[in-house]
Amino acid sequence: MVALAEKAEAFRRLHHGPRPLVLPNAWDVPSARVFEEAGFPAIATSSAGIMVSHGYPDGEQMPRRELLAAVARIAERLAVPLSADVVAGYGASPAAVEKTVEKVLDAGAVGVNLEDLHPSRDRLYRVDAQLRRLEAVRRAAAKRDVPLVINARTDAFRHAPGDEPERLREAIRRASAYRDAGADCVYPMGLREAATIAAFVEALHCPVNVMVRPGLPPLSELERIGVKRVSFGPAGSYAALGLLRRAAREILERGSFELLVEGAIDYEELNRLALARPPPSP
Amino acid sequence: MVALAEKAEAFRRLHHGPRPLVLPNAWDVPSARVFEEAGFPAIATSSAGIMVSHGYPDGEQMPRRELLAAVARIAERLAVPLSADVVAGYGASPAAVEKTVEKVLDAGAVGVNLEDLHPSRDRLYRVDAQLRRLEAVRRAAAKRDVPLVINARTDAFRHAPGDEPERLREAIRRASAYRDAGADCVYPMGLREAATIAAFVEALHCPVNVMVRPGLPPLSELERIGVKRVSFGPAGSYAALGLLRRAAREILERGSFELLVEGAIDYEELNRLALARPPPSP
Repeated sequence: MVALAEKAEAFRRLHHGPRPLVLPNAWDVPSARVFEEAGFPAIATSSAGIMVSHGYPDGEQMPRRELLAAVARIAERLAVPLSADVVAGYGASPAAVEKTVEKVLDAGAVGVNLEDLHPSRDRLYRVDAQLRRLEAVRRAAAKRDVPLVINARTDAFRHAPGDEPERLREAIRRASAYRDAGADCVYPMGLREAATIAAFVEALHCPVNVMVRPGLPPLSELERIGVKRVSFGPAGSYAALGLLRRAAREILERGSFELLVEGAIDYEELNRLALARPPPSP
Repeated sequence: MVALAEKAEAFRRLHHGPRPLVLPNAWDVPSARVFEEAGFPAIATSSAGIMVSHGYPDGEQMPRRELLAAVARIAERLAVPLSADVVAGYGASPAAVEKTVEKVLDAGAVGVNLEDLHPSRDRLYRVDAQLRRLEAVRRAAAKRDVPLVINARTDAFRHAPGDEPERLREAIRRASAYRDAGADCVYPMGLREAATIAAFVEALHCPVNVMVRPGLPPLSELERIGVKRVSFGPAGSYAALGLLRRAAREILERGSFELLVEGAIDYEELNRLALARPPPSP
């Protein structure tokens, strides 16, 4: 676990540089490898991306064993650190979360996302329950002796009761509690406006993760605000499937193949993306 | 197997319409479902696409069991017929090919591609050996009582000895033998020029499959030449990964996310693509 521990520390340091860590979320081996080759210093998984690619909707319907097999396939072929999204941890109990995180580490990931939305998507876990679940994440990491990077996600901005300012206050209250319980980074789902993100970052004083979505300010503004981590979420899947849909329409309506061949990679590149990057020549 | 038999017959008829069958190759559930929703009447798998997405290079390094599990996941969620690419059939012997094709049918596919290039990629099977392997494909279909659509691929145009005219003649000789052995469609790998494709189609008098690649004539010209099936091969994977690479560069070099969000699908659409299309309202 020494190599894994070193990877975890390297991944943690990326949250404290002068510029935000841009963290692309992948859903299979080549999507991860193409991001690694492009130069990103770490990769994350998109749980929605992995689940849908296997024919399961987002949530926890995909068996944990299958999800973690997909995480392991990706981790095995990356040189850079990998962080795994495990939705709400596959189980309400701290013991279930602990077991999931042990398996995440066994799969070769050195970071984890844990959200406070119940997987039925209809209610938030109580804060005290979520704190016990976060303690379980730390217990699993200690058991494996890996300084796992914990990204604590709160869905309060979208799912708490009240108007927008109330929901923002609840998101800040929850994220502050998660930070105090040892989360390395907090992840308020649903924030998009610069002013809202700035208010959240100002209140937290710890690394904050925002997700790429239409209307998100450019990276330079996120940096100015003090955001430390910008992840893609399922945006890579959205973009790739959007392209396939446009290419399909072009062929069916116009009988041409431009969108399918323009800017595409080739057979040799595809095969290279199946495999781990060869070590640099000495 | 009645539903499967009907799907196979419907798939076969698509090779005999007035216009070419455009057959998009998918590599996971949402790539297949996005093509189905766009209106393609049948879908195929890309073996290279499936293999690389699981971290194996193209060929037969991915265990057959894993490949067929991926085919089954796709087939289970499609209403339209699915054709499976099984490379060279996972085994030199006719018995091995027969077993593979039985499993293809059990996975829910109603068409199969079988190529005459040895999986080590260094030599073609002898014609008589390939004919015995094609007989094994038909035996498997008869055993399951499904009129499987057989697409016999020859790699002679790229791998036979001699100059280009000699290699074209060898591709025609092989494809003619495969057609006479009961292949429903023949698939000469590597053809791109209109004149070469026309010479091949003219010689065969049976459905001919060409693959989308840069420089392939547009669909209208392929139709004029008499091509009956145009498949994507791994072009969908090439295009999707090319887009991810361009989006990665945009973010790393310019700090903006345009390629990731423009023309993309959204969360609801992604989740819908995980599942089979609901049956039409009565």
